[in-house]
Amino acid sequence: MAKRNIIVGQSGGPTAVINSSLAGVYKTAIERGFDTVYGMLHGIQGFLDEQYVDLSTQIHSDMDIELLKRTPSAFLGSCRYKLPEIHEDMEIYEKIFDILDKLEIEVFIYIGGNDSMDTIKKLSDYAIVKGHSQKFLGVPKTIDNDLALTDHTPGFGSAAKYIAASTKEVIRDALGLAYKKDMVTIIEIMGRNAGWLTGATALAKTEECEGPDLIYLPEVTFDIDKFCEKIKELLKVKQSIVVAVSEGIKVADGRYVCELSGGGDYVDPFGHKQLAGTAAYLANFLGAQIGCKTRAIEFSTLQRSASHMASRVDIDEAFMVGGAAVKAADEGDTGKMVVIDRLSDDPYMGTAGIYDVHKIANNEKLVPREWMNEDGTYVTDQFVKYIEPLIQGDYTPFMVNGLPQHLVLKK
Amino acid sequence: MAKRNIIVGQSGGPTAVINSSLAGVYKTAIERGFDTVYGMLHGIQGFLDEQYVDLSTQIHSDMDIELLKRTPSAFLGSCRYKLPEIHEDMEIYEKIFDILDKLEIEVFIYIGGNDSMDTIKKLSDYAIVKGHSQKFLGVPKTIDNDLALTDHTPGFGSAAKYIAASTKEVIRDALGLAYKKDMVTIIEIMGRNAGWLTGATALAKTEECEGPDLIYLPEVTFDIDKFCEKIKELLKVKQSIVVAVSEGIKVADGRYVCELSGGGDYVDPFGHKQLAGTAAYLANFLGAQIGCKTRAIEFSTLQRSASHMASRVDIDEAFMVGGAAVKAADEGDTGKMVVIDRLSDDPYMGTAGIYDVHKIANNEKLVPREWMNEDGTYVTDQFVKYIEPLIQGDYTPFMVNGLPQHLVLKK
Repeated sequence: MAKRNIIVGQSGGPTAVINSSLAGVYKTAIERGFDTVYGMLHGIQGFLDEQYVDLSTQIHSDMDIELLKRTPSAFLGSCRYKLPEIHEDMEIYEKIFDILDKLEIEVFIYIGGNDSMDTIKKLSDYAIVKGHSQKFLGVPKTIDNDLALTDHTPGFGSAAKYIAASTKEVIRDALGLAYKKDMVTIIEIMGRNAGWLTGATALAKTEECEGPDLIYLPEVTFDIDKFCEKIKELLKVKQSIVVAVSEGIKVADGRYVCELSGGGDYVDPFGHKQLAGTAAYLANFLGAQIGCKTRAIEFSTLQRSASHMASRVDIDEAFMVGGAAVKAADEGDTGKMVVIDRLSDDPYMGTAGIYDVHKIANNEKLVPREWMNEDGTYVTDQFVKYIEPLIQGDYTPFMVNGLPQHLVLKK
Repeated sequence: MAKRNIIVGQSGGPTAVINSSLAGVYKTAIERGFDTVYGMLHGIQGFLDEQYVDLSTQIHSDMDIELLKRTPSAFLGSCRYKLPEIHEDMEIYEKIFDILDKLEIEVFIYIGGNDSMDTIKKLSDYAIVKGHSQKFLGVPKTIDNDLALTDHTPGFGSAAKYIAASTKEVIRDALGLAYKKDMVTIIEIMGRNAGWLTGATALAKTEECEGPDLIYLPEVTFDIDKFCEKIKELLKVKQSIVVAVSEGIKVADGRYVCELSGGGDYVDPFGHKQLAGTAAYLANFLGAQIGCKTRAIEFSTLQRSASHMASRVDIDEAFMVGGAAVKAADEGDTGKMVVIDRLSDDPYMGTAGIYDVHKIANNEKLVPREWMNEDGTYVTDQFVKYIEPLIQGDYTPFMVNGLPQHLVLKK
C-alpha cells in the first residue's frame, strides 16, 4: 500500500508564531494517521535541493510541541523564493513533482505570506493541469496583517502585543526624563504598505498610559511640514512627545521619507525596497527645525521574533490554522488557504475557514481610511477594537538558566 | 515632638528596576516608623523647585508595591542635574537645606548612578560642615554596571537578561533566513565606556544557540580592517553571522566608530557625547567592502525599560538596597552608598554592604582586560560566570488587557 506522507514548509519573513502553525500541522497530521511528516528546509528553495527532514526525528514529545510553539523564527528555515510562471519554466515544476512522487507525498502545506500563497496557487494549478493527485494548502503567516479575506493573519497579534508593550515602556522612559526640557521620541514600526502594526501602538493607550501622541500610517501621504506644525503645537502643552511612524510613510511625490536623506536603495529579490532610517530622518529633521532634543527608536526585527511577548490568542490560532490545513487537504481540498473568521468580538471568538487561494494571492489588505482620523494622525476606536482581542493572553516562556528556551533543528 | 520624615529621589537614566529600589525605600521607611515618606519629583532638580509628593497618596497597598516593582523608568521622574561645587554656589545648598528643614526631613535617599553619588557626597559634606543633622544615603542604579566597589549595580541584571534574550531571538531570526546567501547582523548595545552590557550578549550562547560570533567591547581599541578580515573568515564557514558591538567602540585615533560617518556630535549636560549609528555604520561598511547583505539592529532604550523581561534577582536586589539605605541612615550613617557584595556564586548569594561615597563617585568600573579573549573579540567564561546569576528568575508582569500594567504617578 502506498504511503500517506505529508510535507510542510515555511517561507518569507518569520513571525513569533510561525512555528506554532508548524506544530499544528505536525500534531494534526500524526492524529489523522499520516505516515511520515516531512519538513522542507528553507521552503521551496531548499526543497528543490532535496533538503528536507523527517519531523519525527525532531519532535519527540508533547513537551517539544509546546517548546516549538514558543520558538520564534522559522524552525525549518525560511526562504524568499518566487516560483516562475508555469509557462516560463516547466522543468522546475517537473522537478518538484518528481521529488513529491519519490517521497510519496499526498499533502503539501506551505506556511507563508502573499508570496507563499502564490506558490500554493501555481503548484495546485500545475497538479490539476497535469493530473497529479497531491493536495496543496496554504497557511497564512505575516506580522504585517496584509493578507486579504482573512480577518487577520497569525503572527500579527504577537507583533502587535510586543509593539504595544514596548511602546508603553518607551513612553514611561520618556516621561521619566522630561523635566524642563522638550523631548520628541519617534518610534519606527515595520509595515511597508500596510499600517496595521504602526496602528497597534495605539493599544499603549490604557488607563495608566497616554499612548503615542501621533500615529502615521503608510496609507496616508505624509506631509512633513504639517507634521512639524503638529509637533510645535504639542510642545506648547507637553514636554514629552512620542510619535509612531511606519517605515513606509511617503511624501506627496511618492518618495519614502527615509529616501529624503538619500538612503534606502537596496531592493530585495521580490523587488521590494529595503527601508531604514525613517525615524532617524524625522528626528534629525525636527531637531534642526525646532531645536528640541529628539531620539529615534526602531523596534526592528524584534517585532517579528519576540516570542517571549507572544499573544496566547495568536499562538493558539496559528496552531489551529496549521491543523485546519491538514484536515482540509485530508478531506480533499487543494489550492486553498486557511483563513481566520471572526465569529464575535466580545468574547472574542475566531475559527478557521477555507478560501480559494486564487482570490487571495498578492492582494494587499490595507488599513481602511475610515479607521484613521480625519487628518491621518491617529487610528480610531474601531481600529483598536479590532486589534485588542488579538493580543490577549500569554504562553509563559520555558525559562532555562534565566532565558527563554527554544526548540532548534538537529541536523 | 519633631517629625521623622524621609525623602527619596531618582536620578539619571532609568532602569527596569529603579522603582523596585523606590519600593524598598518606601516599605522599609514605613516599617521603621518614619512619619512621612516624600518623593522628590525629577530628582534634585525638581526638589529645588519644591516639587515633591507624599508617597502615601500614591502607594496604597502591597499590590501597589508589587506593581511598582514591575514598573520601568523613574516613577518619580528623573533628572540629569549636577550640583555645583559647594564653594561655587552656596546659595543652592542653603536652599536645599531650607526645604529639608521645612519638610522636617531626617533622611535623604538618592537612587542613581555615578553622577548621583556625587550629589550625595556634596550634600553630606555640606551637612557635616554646616552642622545639619540630615543623613544622606545613595542607592546605586545603572544598567551600565560601571560603579566601583559594588559587585554589580541594580538594573544591570535586567538589562543583561533583556539583551541576552533578544540576542537569542535575533540569532534565530537570522538563521531562519540564511540559505544560499550570506547575512551579517550587527547588534548595537548601550554602554559608552564599559562593555558589561555588550558582553552580556555572550549569555545567548546556550545548548540550543551558538550565541554571537563576535563581541566588541569599548575597552579595546576597534580595528575596522581586522574586523573585516574576521567577517570574511567566518563567511567561509557559515552564512549567518551575528556581531555584538558597544555603541562606544573607538578606533585607534580615538574617534568613535559612529563618528567615522560624521554623526554623533550632540553633547549632553554632563559633557557625554550622544552616540548613535555604530551598527549602521559597520553594516554599511561591510556591505560596501564585502558585498554581503547586512543589517543593523539597535536594542535602544528598551534595554533599560523592558521591565517585562526583568530579572527576579535584580528586582529583589534593587528592593534590598533601597531598604538597606533607609536602615543605614536610620542607624546614623551618612555620606554612604549601599553596595551589593557577592557572598557566593553557586548558589548565588548577594547581600547589602555600605561604603563611603567619597570612594565611589565618578570612578568608572570597566570590564577587566583578562575577561576578554586575546584579540578582543569575545568575553571569557569568567565574564559569563559573573553575569549569569544576575539574570535568573522572573517577576511575572501583571497583565491587564494583554499588556503589562504599571504604577504611575497621580498628580
